[in-house]
Amino acid sequence: MSIQRRFDEELAELKQQILRMGSLVEGQIRQALKALVDRDDALAKTVIENDRQVNTMDVAVDEACLELLALQQPAARDLRFITTAMKISTELERMSDLAENICERAIELHEEPQLKPYIDIPLMADRAIKMVGESLDAFVRGDSVLARKVLEEDDYIDELNEQIFRELLSFMMENPKTISRAIRLSFISKYIERIADHATNVAELVVYMVEGKIIRHMTTP
Amino acid sequence: MSIQRRFDEELAELKQQILRMGSLVEGQIRQALKALVDRDDALAKTVIENDRQVNTMDVAVDEACLELLALQQPAARDLRFITTAMKISTELERMSDLAENICERAIELHEEPQLKPYIDIPLMADRAIKMVGESLDAFVRGDSVLARKVLEEDDYIDELNEQIFRELLSFMMENPKTISRAIRLSFISKYIERIADHATNVAELVVYMVEGKIIRHMTTP
Repeated sequence: MSIQRRFDEELAELKQQILRMGSLVEGQIRQALKALVDRDDALAKTVIENDRQVNTMDVAVDEACLELLALQQPAARDLRFITTAMKISTELERMSDLAENICERAIELHEEPQLKPYIDIPLMADRAIKMVGESLDAFVRGDSVLARKVLEEDDYIDELNEQIFRELLSFMMENPKTISRAIRLSFISKYIERIADHATNVAELVVYMVEGKIIRHMTTP
Repeated sequence: MSIQRRFDEELAELKQQILRMGSLVEGQIRQALKALVDRDDALAKTVIENDRQVNTMDVAVDEACLELLALQQPAARDLRFITTAMKISTELERMSDLAENICERAIELHEEPQLKPYIDIPLMADRAIKMVGESLDAFVRGDSVLARKVLEEDDYIDELNEQIFRELLSFMMENPKTISRAIRLSFISKYIERIADHATNVAELVVYMVEGKIIRHMTTP
């Protein structure tokens, strides 16, 4: 097999690795929300446990990228694909940390009766998970139009987070007994907003990879 | 000038770039705290404005790294130094975003009388800034002992954040009129904790760069 052919195959494998890691992280976020809504501590603990798998995958992506960079001098486009993959892997790892944080707060919340039915928070999480999926699709397809769509969606998440926060604030003002629960819920809402921010980071990296001006400066002597 | 010599000089310049970016970010955090403590809205707005400079430096570091990667096939050690620099630049950029967030909350806080004298929050910020500086020193010196010291310091920050949060919670419980101020202060405390987390990320990257097992796998065919 030619070195070029082998290199192309390894690039394709790197794409698959990112997609597998993305699926795992999407699953972590989905399960974290299920643990919150169903008040399921065992599930929350499983999600916390599974974060280790994501960390392992992050290291594996990093190793794969460094090997690809060392293997041969990649062309400008491949070079940016590989460095973008490294950065996306870090973003995904941070999202998984936030899924873990959601579960930690969920477990604490289960010590008291549920403050209110959870409607907006799962809705917000669904939108955030959609953004994660779309940003990764944009990466593997090199689709900056889809990436830009993800950037636009972030505003809606920020609005939802604001709305949830204001509602929780009114609970706290009316009845101080709700404060610790309301604060924990506002943290969870904030974690979801940060997950969407990481998806936005991924989308920005993709726009940069596809359209960025860096490629113009890249000259091999 | 030989290609190797030029490459070494560009690596040295990359180190300087990271240090300059680090100084700017440390300054941003310091000024954000000053804006909070002195209730100085003009300063807060300057910090928010200056975040753009940090973003520009992040892009410049990225370009420099991609050019170095494209310039020649760097040896395993240089390769890891360059990819670590790219990642550190992202961490610094996120810290500057958090300095900006501190200023946004500070401006909101200035609409009401000060809730309490600020003692623990500036103390915590000093420790976080120290961690940022040490983690960058560890990077430029390739000093994993210093990097590990930074990792240990993060526990103290987490404890301080917990303590501040508990104190603010008691304010909220006793007097609902303090809730919005106390929540904003708890956000600021959380932002500082996240700045320390980013310094911890930098330190982990350095340990990985210096001691990591990745280098063992790196073979050029």
